[in-house]
Amino acid sequence: MEPKGVQDYYPEELSYCYGCGRLNEQGHHLKSYWDGEETLARFTPKEYHIAVPGYVYGGLIASLIDCHGTGTAALATYRSEGREPGSLPPLRFVTASLQVDYLRPTPLGIELELKGKILELKGRKVISEISVFANGTVTARGKLVAVRMPDSMQSK
Amino acid sequence: MEPKGVQDYYPEELSYCYGCGRLNEQGHHLKSYWDGEETLARFTPKEYHIAVPGYVYGGLIASLIDCHGTGTAALATYRSEGREPGSLPPLRFVTASLQVDYLRPTPLGIELELKGKILELKGRKVISEISVFANGTVTARGKLVAVRMPDSMQSK
Repeated sequence: MEPKGVQDYYPEELSYCYGCGRLNEQGHHLKSYWDGEETLARFTPKEYHIAVPGYVYGGLIASLIDCHGTGTAALATYRSEGREPGSLPPLRFVTASLQVDYLRPTPLGIELELKGKILELKGRKVISEISVFANGTVTARGKLVAVRMPDSMQSK
Repeated sequence: MEPKGVQDYYPEELSYCYGCGRLNEQGHHLKSYWDGEETLARFTPKEYHIAVPGYVYGGLIASLIDCHGTGTAALATYRSEGREPGSLPPLRFVTASLQVDYLRPTPLGIELELKGKILELKGRKVISEISVFANGTVTARGKLVAVRMPDSMQSK
């Protein structure tokens, strides 16, 4: 069984993200958790998530990197504060910028692994590197700048 | 009625992209066309494409920039060759890298406009800047490096 993701601890009103919100019925429900010193998420694209037949749509890859990057930012901040996801106050990050390099086509029909490394953690900002693996080969690499969600977005 | 997009002229076997393929039944069907010296595409996110309630999911924005960027690359290359989409040989680009800056939250519930500018067009590579507008305000800006699709991806 898959471990709980940091997204399982997001407050209810912040759990509707299409990529990773547990309460978005149509969404991807990505879950990010620690695997040693890296963060991990797994996702199997649907048969319609294609770019061209046989390969995964790049927009989906960017989306997965986006959600795993903000989840990684939350995980790293909880750890830096010496506390667990689920403790208060909850941590929720949004993406300030995202860079994705598509290194080779990503084959469709298998589970992908997203692995996250922390490059920088400073105050309300976390920079991470997210690599996408298919059959053990890296197919895309992202760099994501995440920032703590502004209060103005949480009140809507 | 919306003009035809360059995606309407992609060869049938390359028209299944989740973001812009006319033959992907579940997909977004994004259409990119010229609007003077810029390229344009319009898209209204669904009610479930949310990041947090009231705002559009960043992964969708990255996806739209991705498809409008590759569409823009094809449009610009057709124009540079003095011919129209639909003439032979067909042009189809893939994304080599994508950078997205999320400038402000993108409100949900309205049609978004994606505007593309060509920054560089050189051989098989086209670099474009894609800006996302909501109610006339730019909410995200992307830079996309597109390359002509390698033959190996077309044969699968």
